[in-house]
Amino acid sequence: MQQRSETLSVSTRRGLTEITGGVRGVLRGSGIREGLCTIFIRHTSASLLIQENADPAVQRDLEAFLSRLVPDGDPLFTHVAEGDDDMSSHVKAALTRTSEQVPVREGELVLGTWQGVYVWEHRDGRHRREVVVHVMGE
Amino acid sequence: MQQRSETLSVSTRRGLTEITGGVRGVLRGSGIREGLCTIFIRHTSASLLIQENADPAVQRDLEAFLSRLVPDGDPLFTHVAEGDDDMSSHVKAALTRTSEQVPVREGELVLGTWQGVYVWEHRDGRHRREVVVHVMGE
Amino acid sequence: MQQRSETLSVSTRRGLTEITGGVRGVLRGSGIREGLCTIFIRHTSASLLIQENADPAVQRDLEAFLSRLVPDGDPLFTHVAEGDDDMSSHVKAALTRTSEQVPVREGELVLGTWQGVYVWEHRDGRHRREVVVHVMGE
Repeated sequence: MQQRSETLSVSTRRGLTEITGGVRGVLRGSGIREGLCTIFIRHTSASLLIQENADPAVQRDLEAFLSRLVPDGDPLFTHVAEGDDDMSSHVKAALTRTSEQVPVREGELVLGTWQGVYVWEHRDGRHRREVVVHVMGE
Repeated sequence: MQQRSETLSVSTRRGLTEITGGVRGVLRGSGIREGLCTIFIRHTSASLLIQENADPAVQRDLEAFLSRLVPDGDPLFTHVAEGDDDMSSHVKAALTRTSEQVPVREGELVLGTWQGVYVWEHRDGRHRREVVVHVMGE
Repeated sequence: MQQRSETLSVSTRRGLTEITGGVRGVLRGSGIREGLCTIFIRHTSASLLIQENADPAVQRDLEAFLSRLVPDGDPLFTHVAEGDDDMSSHVKAALTRTSEQVPVREGELVLGTWQGVYVWEHRDGRHRREVVVHVMGE
């Protein structure tokens, strides 16, 4: 049984940024053919998601829905030091994912035909996010 | 250290379909006594959930709540090619889970007394969904 | 490849209770330096979350937001045997996490600077919750 982990540095803007290629790159580099791939984001105002990568409208609609559900500047929020998008980002991250796992078969992630792996940036502006990819297997 | 993975083909209707038995079957077949079990769904309009399997009212209430929170045919949605339940399904999957992990002890999943593993179908009609179960351990 | 699992017994009140120290304790006890740590909660009315552990206002705001989104005693709910906070707790658990995974490097969880691991208690009153921590690696 072998393992390998690498940290991807992902440049983001508000919304979804696909990282499937970067995750596959770590898997290829590991030489592991059968096993488990874990993706972990080291942040609390950005999150992970596995979703459809065919129609870009899905990504726009996901962002629009979540931003309506968790509005920036909600008067309920008291943690507002970094602006209107600060606390809403933490809530959005809480409602999506910090870690994802994808089994590996024959050297490939077992993603479905339409599935891609995404970082979901919840803050305004440009950011750089660290994502740890860990692969374990044989 | 050993591992085994199998794909379950799950027949679904809108709402929750329990797959605890199928997951246990893969674990039994693996012969693994101590380790980690990963469940992964290869779809973006159906998702996974670990929830109460005692009172069926819990499953009905979960479906009712999520369908009120994320209404079919929300005028916000632009990805509507496959109908009113298309984009709402993607959002519901984003708010629940694509992968789940359950540690294994003495040949059993460490699920709590009332926990079952479910596929949550978000589309109308009948569907067949692929769920990969991966077990790693000794 | 080695593994170890332990069950933490966590005393909770409604809201977030940090368990990062307990998870680290299991990791230290395992002697594992490179690998994967899985955290699993054996309940359906309490959940897990990895979120900011710096400003306590984040935790209060998370609880306030989720309790407004999923109100106790919602007339939609039919599973009400244990009171107004019964079904709302199941929904809140469904919208957050039952399992979390954190890769391990050089004997440490790869948590970001501001990340802590929490049990999120959704029921009123005091409870005791079982959290299984499983570490696998070398």
